[in-house]
Amino acid sequence: MTRIGSWSATRVGPVSDMVETAGSWLREDELESARERLPIVYIDAIPVRTDDRGQVTLIGLLLRAMPDGTISRAVVSGRVLYGERVRDALLRHIEKDLGTMALPRVSPSPQPFTVVEYFPSPEVTGFHDPRQHAVALAFIVPLAGDCSPSHEALDLVWVTPEEASAPQFQAEMSGGQGRLVRMALAHCGLLP
Amino acid sequence: MTRIGSWSATRVGPVSDMVETAGSWLREDELESARERLPIVYIDAIPVRTDDRGQVTLIGLLLRAMPDGTISRAVVSGRVLYGERVRDALLRHIEKDLGTMALPRVSPSPQPFTVVEYFPSPEVTGFHDPRQHAVALAFIVPLAGDCSPSHEALDLVWVTPEEASAPQFQAEMSGGQGRLVRMALAHCGLLP
Amino acid sequence: MTRIGSWSATRVGPVSDMVETAGSWLREDELESARERLPIVYIDAIPVRTDDRGQVTLIGLLLRAMPDGTISRAVVSGRVLYGERVRDALLRHIEKDLGTMALPRVSPSPQPFTVVEYFPSPEVTGFHDPRQHAVALAFIVPLAGDCSPSHEALDLVWVTPEEASAPQFQAEMSGGQGRLVRMALAHCGLLP
Amino acid sequence: MTRIGSWSATRVGPVSDMVETAGSWLREDELESARERLPIVYIDAIPVRTDDRGQVTLIGLLLRAMPDGTISRAVVSGRVLYGERVRDALLRHIEKDLGTMALPRVSPSPQPFTVVEYFPSPEVTGFHDPRQHAVALAFIVPLAGDCSPSHEALDLVWVTPEEASAPQFQAEMSGGQGRLVRMALAHCGLLP
Repeated sequence: MTRIGSWSATRVGPVSDMVETAGSWLREDELESARERLPIVYIDAIPVRTDDRGQVTLIGLLLRAMPDGTISRAVVSGRVLYGERVRDALLRHIEKDLGTMALPRVSPSPQPFTVVEYFPSPEVTGFHDPRQHAVALAFIVPLAGDCSPSHEALDLVWVTPEEASAPQFQAEMSGGQGRLVRMALAHCGLLP
Repeated sequence: MTRIGSWSATRVGPVSDMVETAGSWLREDELESARERLPIVYIDAIPVRTDDRGQVTLIGLLLRAMPDGTISRAVVSGRVLYGERVRDALLRHIEKDLGTMALPRVSPSPQPFTVVEYFPSPEVTGFHDPRQHAVALAFIVPLAGDCSPSHEALDLVWVTPEEASAPQFQAEMSGGQGRLVRMALAHCGLLP
Repeated sequence: MTRIGSWSATRVGPVSDMVETAGSWLREDELESARERLPIVYIDAIPVRTDDRGQVTLIGLLLRAMPDGTISRAVVSGRVLYGERVRDALLRHIEKDLGTMALPRVSPSPQPFTVVEYFPSPEVTGFHDPRQHAVALAFIVPLAGDCSPSHEALDLVWVTPEEASAPQFQAEMSGGQGRLVRMALAHCGLLP
Repeated sequence: MTRIGSWSATRVGPVSDMVETAGSWLREDELESARERLPIVYIDAIPVRTDDRGQVTLIGLLLRAMPDGTISRAVVSGRVLYGERVRDALLRHIEKDLGTMALPRVSPSPQPFTVVEYFPSPEVTGFHDPRQHAVALAFIVPLAGDCSPSHEALDLVWVTPEEASAPQFQAEMSGGQGRLVRMALAHCGLLP
């Protein structure tokens, strides 16, 4: 039986130290059931490279299979687990998608730059996830290390703010991902 | 069979078009079960009165029974339902706690001033909810109308920023509520 | 001799009560001189109409002569005076441009959604003001009353987020104004 | 004649490369004069140490002579020069106060966590600067390197959030500095 993992709230060590905690696991079918009943807490992390003044120079975009079956450029995204701090969920999903050497610099503040509401219907907000209603806290995360697409990502590209906003590139992003990237650029003062 | 509701019919826009959908309701026991497995999406709304320059003059605090059994001064707080926008959850819980004439002015932006992580253990963040792991998007909401405590609230008082921060008043707030109020005041530039 | 007005820091009454304070006025030539030596504190206010859920439905755009000689659609913008609170500068410029019946609802928090850096050279940030280096605190301000273009504005139009972002409309905005409007829409989750 | 330096807007190299630009300098007496007529653009930087999850563990506080003649614990603070980006002013003042090896990680976003309005009168906002009306953009800046108090600072101490908020330590901060530190902690979710 496949189980979707969780971890204890007190974890401070590396992600690989995660242990199973009684009662904090969901079977696949239980998760499916919950997804039809409750909004799910997510994080969205926009990976960026910055210069030594902290200004964004490049945005990292994964290529992957999306919930709606399309292949899309996408940011790092994933569920917050029971007992997990938002900050730890950010680190775990970045490590999962970009490897253990990415050296993310998560913001000292828990204030997200926006909250993205994904709905099963594409009409509600334009942010679309056919599997679930997800409420994602979105953060811009500078990476100081080496990134390599891992897990389910097919590819990783680094593009400039101009390239990321260009119609051609935006057309490669589905489910609202292109819009989220432009919202992140706007927050950084770099929307072309 | 007790059911945990979807939301009230008083909502104004296209919301009234929403119908109860099989699968979008949770029985009490199902909610209890989910609360042991998944973080739950919440909103926290700090009710304020402002002068005509928009500056906070008073903070509204409810008196109510808390999840841990204490009686505490508290802000408006509640779950976001499946299919519900964060904005609508704010309005619904404000109406539930402060009545239909409160005239809340919800911010045009979805960016919360902070995210509060409530854990079953009081040690993790200091924000404590023995029932569940809740991730609350916190907003400051000016109210322009008449407020009357309704639903489960025992009382409503309006206090100045100084009064709300005073040790005596802070001692009447449990589970991190006193700290949340001071965080809201800090965000408004009014922490004494 | 033309004098650029200031007002005392303690003002709480209507704008028309402003009085001259010894030492807090600048002659035109002194202001010109300061503008060549110091960054000037500005506010930018993006006027919006919201529905009763607080969501932006329309953006208000003035038509006016810009510092660079062009005629452009523009948001409300102006200098913060010596001794003036940022909050009061917002109210004063909104009243000056949109009239006394606009009923602005200025945010309870002093946190701007962005800071716009205008430079005499258009290359530095893309935000261009040939007269000066201005640092503008930018706020989204819902208006509840009747607005009429006054002072130096030639016209006022209310447009939807989609219209404001459309290439045709963006082409009518110079000096970075079109970009600022899209940044405000992004902050409200409404960038198309 | 002492001159207060400025630098060109296009600087990208180290701070020591600053060059005088014709017209962009102010004599001391001119700066004094401007300070009586115009609000001055400032940055406030709260230096912090973070753990590898990005959470603040320590706050760095300088000891120095304040504008009002007191000796106070204080954060990094200083003027934005004509032609200078806010981001560069942050880096310049951090280098000036904490040395060239401090390795600051300035946020990718220009959104400050608050705006602090300093007035010559201590009554207006509680933030007091007898020399001038200053409008300060406040940022929390993690430092990854070695810090040594330089320039006019007498001392640098690193304290925990609890220590920084304790009445004893707060009493060592004048002009609103203690309040600003607690506002920064509130923004990081760490106000005790």
